Amino acid sequence: MAAAAPPPPPTPAPSAPTGLPDSDSTPVGHPLFARIRLATPLDIPHIHKLIHQMAIFEKLTHLFTATESSLASTLFKSPPFLSFTIFLLEVSSHPFEKDSNFHSQNFTPIERIFNLDHSLIDPEAETFKNGINGDVVVAGFVLFFPNFSTFLGKPGFYVEDLFVRECYRRKGLGKLLLSAVASQAVKMGYGRVEWVVLDWNVNAIKFYEEMGANVLPEWRICRLTGPALETYRDAI
Amino acid sequence: MAAAAPPPPPTPAPSAPTGLPDSDSTPVGHPLFARIRLATPLDIPHIHKLIHQMAIFEKLTHLFTATESSLASTLFKSPPFLSFTIFLLEVSSHPFEKDSNFHSQNFTPIERIFNLDHSLIDPEAETFKNGINGDVVVAGFVLFFPNFSTFLGKPGFYVEDLFVRECYRRKGLGKLLLSAVASQAVKMGYGRVEWVVLDWNVNAIKFYEEMGANVLPEWRICRLTGPALETYRDAI
Repeated sequence: MAAAAPPPPPTPAPSAPTGLPDSDSTPVGHPLFARIRLATPLDIPHIHKLIHQMAIFEKLTHLFTATESSLASTLFKSPPFLSFTIFLLEVSSHPFEKDSNFHSQNFTPIERIFNLDHSLIDPEAETFKNGINGDVVVAGFVLFFPNFSTFLGKPGFYVEDLFVRECYRRKGLGKLLLSAVASQAVKMGYGRVEWVVLDWNVNAIKFYEEMGANVLPEWRICRLTGPALETYRDAI
Repeated sequence: MAAAAPPPPPTPAPSAPTGLPDSDSTPVGHPLFARIRLATPLDIPHIHKLIHQMAIFEKLTHLFTATESSLASTLFKSPPFLSFTIFLLEVSSHPFEKDSNFHSQNFTPIERIFNLDHSLIDPEAETFKNGINGDVVVAGFVLFFPNFSTFLGKPGFYVEDLFVRECYRRKGLGKLLLSAVASQAVKMGYGRVEWVVLDWNVNAIKFYEEMGANVLPEWRICRLTGPALETYRDAI
């Protein structure tokens, strides 16, 4: 489904022009260590649970038919960025150990420290523990893939989903995920990053506009699916 | 840019449940032979001209910066259907010669005969002659690529552009192009075909709804591009 609505971002740190937390700042209070890395097939169980939570958030569970198996058979079939790509967001109360498994030619994990006023309680920590590194838990994800602008004559990225688990919202993590996609697009010479938002979700629209996006008022999505799509099986 | 608005379709032929012309019908009057095939890099000059005509049609020439070179460096990099894919629409007043160059494991060209009441005059026939087969001219195209529904847990197709040159509109050719994409989606087990339409384009909306599509009223497109996107170059 479409991008879930992130909450308004926190006040930008003065030292970070784009409002991202400054990785050089000294952790004070309650540091939350965040990492964005490319997802792997081993992450599918967590990704499946995150998508289900997103369906609940959007009140669209009746449209949720994905299984771990259907995700496994369709994701991770191409090198990252050339087709469907997932950035996974992990958090920890301790610094991340260097994990060379997550470093690749394609993408070096992004790490940031968020200094929180209060310590966080994650009621689902056990469910979303990544099972490898101590108290590291999966907190969210962004799924995106290349699209193409014929007018620009070059590709862009389309962000299909952006989701951060409830207890980690309103801390700038959604912005970090979307910024990671935008940064990757610029690095690849792509011309656009696009996604969709519900027209009544004024908080999300404000958030996206503050990130520099334009909301296009006139375009509507057309969707051919289900039995209506099936009628085209023998139409050609 | 987004899908150009095709005109309302012609009255469906009784023998074709989906409204497509029946390929077995005997040509009478003024037959127009139509073929849909996968585009190749050799088609780039024609594709570039078609995109430019689409920009004029949509009054968006200020957004048109594609060049033959930018298209050549970004299209045809993957096997058909796995990334950006173009179906080219060719027409002729004579039956197509069998051209084995256009047959591939991926896609067998689709041929249809449209029986017109009047003969057509194509003022741009010379410009869009394909240079290989007699009077065959390029009349339109559809550009599409895979997208992904996390809720369905499977891919679909997104139609970025659908365009038929002016003198060939209102004959069912746009419907044939879109049907070819829908049929391909079903054959690949994909769950959706999506595209966008301008909300004031009531003819196009009616046309798409008659093809079985739903227009989603609440979703808006967000776009991060140009200088606003560039600011993310060093954000991460």
